[in-house]
Amino acid sequence: MSTNTFGHLFCVTTWGESHGEAIGCVIDGCPPNIEIDETYIQQFMDKRKPGQSRHTTQRKESDTVKILSGVFEGKTTGTPISLIIYNEDQRSKDYGDIKNKFRPGHADYTYLSKYGIRDYRGGGRSSARETATRVAAGAVARKVLNSKLGEDFDVRAALVQMGKYTIDRENWDWNEVNNNPFFSPDVAIVPQWEDYLDSIRKNGSSIGAVIEVVAEGVPVGLGAPIYAKLDADIASNLMSINAVKGVEIGAGMSAAELTGEENADEMFSDEEGNVSFSSNNAGGILGGISSGQDIIARFSVKPTSSILTPRKTIDIDHNETEIITKGRHDPCVGIRAVPIGEAMVLCAILDHYLLHKAQCGFCPATK
Amino acid sequence: MSTNTFGHLFCVTTWGESHGEAIGCVIDGCPPNIEIDETYIQQFMDKRKPGQSRHTTQRKESDTVKILSGVFEGKTTGTPISLIIYNEDQRSKDYGDIKNKFRPGHADYTYLSKYGIRDYRGGGRSSARETATRVAAGAVARKVLNSKLGEDFDVRAALVQMGKYTIDRENWDWNEVNNNPFFSPDVAIVPQWEDYLDSIRKNGSSIGAVIEVVAEGVPVGLGAPIYAKLDADIASNLMSINAVKGVEIGAGMSAAELTGEENADEMFSDEEGNVSFSSNNAGGILGGISSGQDIIARFSVKPTSSILTPRKTIDIDHNETEIITKGRHDPCVGIRAVPIGEAMVLCAILDHYLLHKAQCGFCPATK
Amino acid sequence: MSTNTFGHLFCVTTWGESHGEAIGCVIDGCPPNIEIDETYIQQFMDKRKPGQSRHTTQRKESDTVKILSGVFEGKTTGTPISLIIYNEDQRSKDYGDIKNKFRPGHADYTYLSKYGIRDYRGGGRSSARETATRVAAGAVARKVLNSKLGEDFDVRAALVQMGKYTIDRENWDWNEVNNNPFFSPDVAIVPQWEDYLDSIRKNGSSIGAVIEVVAEGVPVGLGAPIYAKLDADIASNLMSINAVKGVEIGAGMSAAELTGEENADEMFSDEEGNVSFSSNNAGGILGGISSGQDIIARFSVKPTSSILTPRKTIDIDHNETEIITKGRHDPCVGIRAVPIGEAMVLCAILDHYLLHKAQCGFCPATK
Amino acid sequence: MSTNTFGHLFCVTTWGESHGEAIGCVIDGCPPNIEIDETYIQQFMDKRKPGQSRHTTQRKESDTVKILSGVFEGKTTGTPISLIIYNEDQRSKDYGDIKNKFRPGHADYTYLSKYGIRDYRGGGRSSARETATRVAAGAVARKVLNSKLGEDFDVRAALVQMGKYTIDRENWDWNEVNNNPFFSPDVAIVPQWEDYLDSIRKNGSSIGAVIEVVAEGVPVGLGAPIYAKLDADIASNLMSINAVKGVEIGAGMSAAELTGEENADEMFSDEEGNVSFSSNNAGGILGGISSGQDIIARFSVKPTSSILTPRKTIDIDHNETEIITKGRHDPCVGIRAVPIGEAMVLCAILDHYLLHKAQCGFCPATK
Repeated sequence: MSTNTFGHLFCVTTWGESHGEAIGCVIDGCPPNIEIDETYIQQFMDKRKPGQSRHTTQRKESDTVKILSGVFEGKTTGTPISLIIYNEDQRSKDYGDIKNKFRPGHADYTYLSKYGIRDYRGGGRSSARETATRVAAGAVARKVLNSKLGEDFDVRAALVQMGKYTIDRENWDWNEVNNNPFFSPDVAIVPQWEDYLDSIRKNGSSIGAVIEVVAEGVPVGLGAPIYAKLDADIASNLMSINAVKGVEIGAGMSAAELTGEENADEMFSDEEGNVSFSSNNAGGILGGISSGQDIIARFSVKPTSSILTPRKTIDIDHNETEIITKGRHDPCVGIRAVPIGEAMVLCAILDHYLLHKAQCGFCPATK
Repeated sequence: MSTNTFGHLFCVTTWGESHGEAIGCVIDGCPPNIEIDETYIQQFMDKRKPGQSRHTTQRKESDTVKILSGVFEGKTTGTPISLIIYNEDQRSKDYGDIKNKFRPGHADYTYLSKYGIRDYRGGGRSSARETATRVAAGAVARKVLNSKLGEDFDVRAALVQMGKYTIDRENWDWNEVNNNPFFSPDVAIVPQWEDYLDSIRKNGSSIGAVIEVVAEGVPVGLGAPIYAKLDADIASNLMSINAVKGVEIGAGMSAAELTGEENADEMFSDEEGNVSFSSNNAGGILGGISSGQDIIARFSVKPTSSILTPRKTIDIDHNETEIITKGRHDPCVGIRAVPIGEAMVLCAILDHYLLHKAQCGFCPATK
Repeated sequence: MSTNTFGHLFCVTTWGESHGEAIGCVIDGCPPNIEIDETYIQQFMDKRKPGQSRHTTQRKESDTVKILSGVFEGKTTGTPISLIIYNEDQRSKDYGDIKNKFRPGHADYTYLSKYGIRDYRGGGRSSARETATRVAAGAVARKVLNSKLGEDFDVRAALVQMGKYTIDRENWDWNEVNNNPFFSPDVAIVPQWEDYLDSIRKNGSSIGAVIEVVAEGVPVGLGAPIYAKLDADIASNLMSINAVKGVEIGAGMSAAELTGEENADEMFSDEEGNVSFSSNNAGGILGGISSGQDIIARFSVKPTSSILTPRKTIDIDHNETEIITKGRHDPCVGIRAVPIGEAMVLCAILDHYLLHKAQCGFCPATK
Repeated sequence: MSTNTFGHLFCVTTWGESHGEAIGCVIDGCPPNIEIDETYIQQFMDKRKPGQSRHTTQRKESDTVKILSGVFEGKTTGTPISLIIYNEDQRSKDYGDIKNKFRPGHADYTYLSKYGIRDYRGGGRSSARETATRVAAGAVARKVLNSKLGEDFDVRAALVQMGKYTIDRENWDWNEVNNNPFFSPDVAIVPQWEDYLDSIRKNGSSIGAVIEVVAEGVPVGLGAPIYAKLDADIASNLMSINAVKGVEIGAGMSAAELTGEENADEMFSDEEGNVSFSSNNAGGILGGISSGQDIIARFSVKPTSSILTPRKTIDIDHNETEIITKGRHDPCVGIRAVPIGEAMVLCAILDHYLLHKAQCGFCPATK
């Protein structure tokens, strides 16, 4: 029960600190004979890597992934896949303030209280740098799922809210998501977000966001009641991402406002017996099991806690003081959480694909 | 990796169906020498049991808990605690409609698709009846935590929203929560909720709700980064409850709207070095580890899917049809989710208390 | 990670004490749509239950199994199967000696030292009575495996050594195993064992034994390197049985005496490509994965620690004293370990069958 | 539930193939604030590394361990410790025979049957090269245990049998174990083993062995009944080592020959209440829990399957053929298993130390 591992059968164990020599992960339980290489994984790393626009941190990391094991002649062998990413831009600097003071909103105080020691350099283990390894694991999961479920299967994510500015869902266009620096599916909001985030950045401030993840082509039947429900695992996976404070499936928190009549996703069937629904308040999951509808998950990301405005805090000796967090930070860390959210949902789905295959099997059995 | 088990060290395995002979759970990893008896557990069962007011289902269940193992002469022995609750009111009735048609919003379709078989009687395993066993396990967790952390430790929950009607937090009074049929901390809203829910019930409809859980007296340092973060485990535990569609920690989904300045919970210290905070947007958890502040979690519960209004659906042969769900149902199942939410948070906290004790230990070591 | 659970996907959680009201287990991860009923399970319970001959304990237990959940209309539903066995012959007696003194060879001292409390009645949780639940779980595993692998699949066990008396393998006849009170495959040794054990019993003494378990019809490919190797899991499962002190696979401890030439199980193939081997020193497992040969495991069971000869010991206050363990005990507890060994190997094989199906699948996929 | 991970709380996940770029492991759950560095670990690596004498393989590997994470300023931080060992002597050679034929006794056939693909270079994942990472993890466990339990705690192993040649236990001297190339505790047998193994090696043959592991200074109370018993976990850990075919605790397989009188380890107490025993047939474990006596475990290692004598086998197309395994092999792979056995027992003990601390705690609590 490694607490740095997630997954029941497709297990991802991550390791590494922000300013150590490298970070990495070990993926265990991957089906064999899946074609995979570093180039395939890298394209997803590149979506998350820093320094892609003025709207994200300027830390320079190529986030180049290297496969150390588990792949032979371009195919997975069924043995653990070890992936490593060397840290390149661990700036040698004076860590004085961050070493001796707790940054509000960061994990400095809790890590030191828990362990009695902490690697304060760049947040150490609690840095979002760790999420690079999740994206790498998610790429492997995606390759496996496309191999098993076909190209109709896809998991995509988008930024749907930044501060108080929410997209217009009428404008949703998946094709636009990778054409703007915010992963916005609504091109109309992009100029507004640009101006807003420029002002946030120039003020040394930061802002929160909401990301939506959509999984299409998921077969009915994935999920393992009662305590490894697909939605419970997605919730856990998303909440484990740095700075996430809320997770929703389908109607989410607003389900509280619905009546039974409004909430019921009515069911229909065509002549071939294919099932369809009138709506998707369930977010594609009923009783913890996928219904065949799109799986819809959303999560909120709090604003980066590193800001230039002085905040009151205490030092490691519990004397009251103030802190300003200089350095290279994302004004809206939610942007780079988009590919991370995709990755965490991908891993959850593959995990449940394997669990379902074990206990129940698919029909036809060739899937 | 039983999927009907939750917890890393304080492990709860549940079993049983709505209309089987009994339901129950096995609690493993409980510390020894804790005083516990059936009477203590029963008081929490009674909060969740049906038929307490006109606002909940009229199914008659005493939900009497019996301890079958793991307790000797009134104390836990450290061996598995087996708890059993006999079902008393499995009404012999015609299951015709529910047997042959899928109820929208229920797990009928997904269970049958997954397993190729389902116990359709009252929802079988997917029935919220299973949650009785969680409340029993939560009572044991509470007794252990009070024994270890003292009487200042407490976990309480309350209903904070029903439909569009949200409590006034200015009126929050924990003493009132058990004095009204809704577990409302705001007595002023009770008459409004009564009228509203009466009309919902008389129309054969149902409505969603939001529950808030607050844990006080949690020591700093509980939580196991990265993938068994305290908030990730609470999210998983709460999302595993029937009908839950969203989970929030602290500021929750609204964290998206905060700036870094607003979000930062500034830190202070008194002369004894005791730490305090200016606010609690973090909900008591930073980097997955408890900060010593109150832990605040909220979750939404969708409206009961069983309603009297006919809904379009399909039968098990995928023919289109309609269904009306008669029977004994909660018009707002969120009410009875209040003690369940408490129980799931209690179990998560005890689990992390034990994990922390294993890896790091407490100072002073006597805790 | 419940420590009272075994299995990765076919998970068995057991609970209960020797003199409590009942014992039982919860089986999770069982494939759905498998026909099972109490009668089927009972036949295996009857092999282990006490009082079948003068050579086993005279405690009167019918060991009647009752299914409380997870089976609907005679078939498994894929949800947890809860099995319960009520204790019937918890003799009300004076526990004085066993309460206050530690019986050498028993777990009295270690349980009390570990937990600071113990249910001393009949050994409490450390009693071999718990193994009844394993046999029940093994029966379910057997039914599933026969359903998936056909009737050629079988797991059988036999007593091959009692004290210094070892069977003649030339006489091995599986048909005889259930025709004598020792589960001996060699009828010729039965009279010798009868005389020997009568003398042991009359002297109030006890004796150890060796059991051999053979699994036939296991497909090639089961096992999950590196740390859930099929042989490692079988070793763990067998070593967890009360009183077991050694586990061997294939050549076992005597592998130390073999040369590489002797040890090599040479491989052959017939015209259809079916693989055969010249010998089976590997015991059917290579690199932790089944080879398609019979799986051969052996385990030793120490003599019952409850004997009539006075032994020196200490009391719970650490004063030196002596103890005689009266009561109803097996003179050779190894006999009743035969069906337990079968059950533990059955569970390990089903567990790995499911793991293999998840990660790799079978060819043809219908298996 | 990664199958390449072992341990409940002190979790070791290993990765890597014999001829890949590197091998390594991730250790999770390590207590914080333990002093550790590469030099400390390296001394144990050096005991296992190849090419130390003419009696082991001539593959040249320095087995230099590098710490990539989890250690800060010379101390563990409580976060995952990633260790890497680069492979240096992956000889570029013609893999023809090993690529196309199955070596009897090796995992070639089972890996290919299971996964449908295999990294045949040097055995890939099934190579004993993986065990280097276990030794590294064991060194970390040792450092933690010495920190917690003091210097009286020690785990040591020795070779006690090679082929038919068994040591004289009267000659046992731990001080001699590291002074001869066999880790023999009996200097008298060394010349005999040298001659014997020279002849084995010159003939291109190989021979099996038995290793004994002794743990001293283990406190009473470690072990987690029923299915994570200390002996069950030690059995699993040892059986997971390449080529191991049998595991014994205390009297082991010979317990079958003992009477209850002989087997009983009688208990005594001195004036301070310190407990002692007349013998140690239990091998320091009663009911799955440590008794405070030395823990004694033994395991057999089969002869290296790579021999120069031609053996009959089949190729990957199931045609019958012969194979000679040339290359650099250990004539008695059991020798290098000595530090591996130590490591696996160390990890099991630390794991149970942490489990016990979680559930029960130690008295005095400072331990």
